[in-house]
Amino acid sequence: MNPSKTVAPKKLKGFQDYSPQSMSLRFQIMDKVRQMATLAGFSPIGTPSLEYSEVLLGVGGETDKQVFRFMDNGERDVALRFDLTVPFARYVAENFSQLSFPFKRLQIGDVWRAEKPQKGRYREFCQCDLDIIGVEHSSADAEVIGCFASILAALQIGPVTFQLSHRRILSALMAVFLGTPPEAESSLLIAIDKLDKIGKDAVAKLLIEQHSFITPEKAYLFLEILAAKDSEGHTDLKPIEDSFKDHPKGLEALTDLKNCLLYLKQMASHLLAVNFKINLSVARGLGYYTGVVFETTMNEKPSFGSICSGGRYDNLVERFISQPLSGVGGSLGLDRLVAALLEIKEEKGFLIEKSQETKVFIAVAGEENQDYGFSIASFLRQNGVICDIGFKPKKLAHQFKYASKNNFPFVITVGSEEKEHQNISFKKMATGEEIKNLPLKEILSYIKN
Amino acid sequence: MNPSKTVAPKKLKGFQDYSPQSMSLRFQIMDKVRQMATLAGFSPIGTPSLEYSEVLLGVGGETDKQVFRFMDNGERDVALRFDLTVPFARYVAENFSQLSFPFKRLQIGDVWRAEKPQKGRYREFCQCDLDIIGVEHSSADAEVIGCFASILAALQIGPVTFQLSHRRILSALMAVFLGTPPEAESSLLIAIDKLDKIGKDAVAKLLIEQHSFITPEKAYLFLEILAAKDSEGHTDLKPIEDSFKDHPKGLEALTDLKNCLLYLKQMASHLLAVNFKINLSVARGLGYYTGVVFETTMNEKPSFGSICSGGRYDNLVERFISQPLSGVGGSLGLDRLVAALLEIKEEKGFLIEKSQETKVFIAVAGEENQDYGFSIASFLRQNGVICDIGFKPKKLAHQFKYASKNNFPFVITVGSEEKEHQNISFKKMATGEEIKNLPLKEILSYIKN
Repeated sequence: MNPSKTVAPKKLKGFQDYSPQSMSLRFQIMDKVRQMATLAGFSPIGTPSLEYSEVLLGVGGETDKQVFRFMDNGERDVALRFDLTVPFARYVAENFSQLSFPFKRLQIGDVWRAEKPQKGRYREFCQCDLDIIGVEHSSADAEVIGCFASILAALQIGPVTFQLSHRRILSALMAVFLGTPPEAESSLLIAIDKLDKIGKDAVAKLLIEQHSFITPEKAYLFLEILAAKDSEGHTDLKPIEDSFKDHPKGLEALTDLKNCLLYLKQMASHLLAVNFKINLSVARGLGYYTGVVFETTMNEKPSFGSICSGGRYDNLVERFISQPLSGVGGSLGLDRLVAALLEIKEEKGFLIEKSQETKVFIAVAGEENQDYGFSIASFLRQNGVICDIGFKPKKLAHQFKYASKNNFPFVITVGSEEKEHQNISFKKMATGEEIKNLPLKEILSYIKN
Repeated sequence: MNPSKTVAPKKLKGFQDYSPQSMSLRFQIMDKVRQMATLAGFSPIGTPSLEYSEVLLGVGGETDKQVFRFMDNGERDVALRFDLTVPFARYVAENFSQLSFPFKRLQIGDVWRAEKPQKGRYREFCQCDLDIIGVEHSSADAEVIGCFASILAALQIGPVTFQLSHRRILSALMAVFLGTPPEAESSLLIAIDKLDKIGKDAVAKLLIEQHSFITPEKAYLFLEILAAKDSEGHTDLKPIEDSFKDHPKGLEALTDLKNCLLYLKQMASHLLAVNFKINLSVARGLGYYTGVVFETTMNEKPSFGSICSGGRYDNLVERFISQPLSGVGGSLGLDRLVAALLEIKEEKGFLIEKSQETKVFIAVAGEENQDYGFSIASFLRQNGVICDIGFKPKKLAHQFKYASKNNFPFVITVGSEEKEHQNISFKKMATGEEIKNLPLKEILSYIKN
């Protein structure tokens, strides 16, 4: 190490540090995720950050271009995971014979995407994923989405709306109204996904440009159907159902989506401030979805985009083993949620309830009493009292000033007299009340009351 | 995505998945780390996994060869962090003006090292780090080590021994007995660190081979001094003190180490099964240490090696800003601890206490009652009861069999009759006791008693 040559202390673009305030908030959210997921019977697992590129890539969508991929020291082609879903499919395939299904997993972990950094979008971010593998039925979709709803309700972040859509309904609509062959679907889905953001005219233009078989008339008829809302604000399913008369797969998908909504409404009856809406213009970019897809927005913070998204993927495990195994899952974006919560906190002074913590500062009078100070600190901590202690003890006045500046409600002083009698002196900072030579065990009742 | 072309579901060498059992254990340990660190006034922070290579590399020791380093898509020379200490020094330097000192940090995060995988050693592993920046005094060393001691005591993993050493004592000893110039120290430290493993003769041979100025007589005299123990099993400090008569820096370092031990013993008086020993043959491989260094072994599981290590690094922040800022810290190796705990669990059936969780399975009689089942599930979960539910409901007998196999103590049945009357039926699996048509709210007292 050559300390004379200074290195610039800077982070990579798109990466961030977490301050104590934001890290505490991250921990609180992760705790809530774990608590609600445990109540719903999800089991936690972990997978590596780094995988063979072959495992992660080639699932469609935009992701292949966005991965951090390199050759490792052993000349292996490796990549940092860009989500927790594809590695989970690898996990299920690799551990197939040991797992019992349905397998409900919770995973909390960082993912990396080399995309353009923008407000609230980083190249490294944390996802909290819930998935159910082994159930090809809308009840599993509802279980995953309902658990996310219980987490968001518990976080008290204000009203949220889950927007539900369905890939097979969109496929059927494209077949009926546009005459789209299956292989042309994925590029059209990316255009459809923009409907709420850029509007009908712009999306119609995109559709027409992409395929010669889409006439302006077809495009507008299709988009009218997608954008029409019923009296409750859901996509109007009546005309869609009518158009599926000769399309049994479309009808089946419609029933699937309706059942999912029915189950979610039952769960929501015990949750506050959670709404579910069918919105078929939600398509999701990722290539691997095959059924219900969803996104979630905070009603009072729409600018943060979707804080929780996912869907059904019925063919992902099949990439690895010749075993049909349906899956459904989603991700809660921890960093976006933290950013939103910090903004709410600033605006309203309102946040997840934080327990009023008892904090004690131990001021040490003279270095020869540092050892006694540590004994007191250890005693208090073992009794659940948060406490800090003066290091390399300076004058008492200096230590009291530090305690006051850092909002410690109590200061304990230990000097030679206290050490000799194995007791303490004690000051309540708010009132200035002082007690000298208090027996150690009595301090707990003073502090906790 | 082309499901016809199967990809092998395999992990990279040296990387691992975490099963629900091992992940639950990881979470329990991390919770305990956070709890004890919070009680001792440490603040959680986070830093990126990926940094400029320039930030991470060149701190000495073996690490430079072991990093995962590559050029990113923007042609930046980047690397995955190999520890949490060097990025923390970058964090302190970058945020210097906003931080108040002493700054006590907690960080829990993964690190990556491209070293040869072996039992209990992986290329990706999780570290729990505690550090204090801004105090050049043994009280801060004791605070860090003492907090780790409180964590290990709380985990009830059996007796552990912290082995304490001191880089500046070792430097003084090398100067006095071997005539070592400062620039030759680091290679000798690596040899000294092997004393407990390979013995005096082998280490003497290494020392003699490395430097012509080290004669066999000098080497053996030096190693005798290092290996001599007093009646309590500490390195015998008396002959060392005598040899430092004309070496004030050596004497100062001795006082520093003795004070650290004194403080730790005071803290340990409130902890169970934690021992502290001075063992000067502990040297630590990393290049950046400058004072107290420590390692920790489980008395009953020495084969797992050190589960918690660290030391004082007084020049690390200075790599980034021309600001002298002392630091001391250490890392608890989460994965090694989990491996050891799993082995202990297997041997003794003894582990961190796990709360006896109430688990309910909701059996659904007929798909038309799935929605009502979800309402019950949501109600129970909101009341803190862990519960699971049948998906895509099959015959009741099938669901009862599943509940029995998975050790659910209670099964609730919901069918058309229950849905109509908005109540439930209920079976206690251990006794076979059944109650029909119980009002929903009464279920909680049945389950919780």
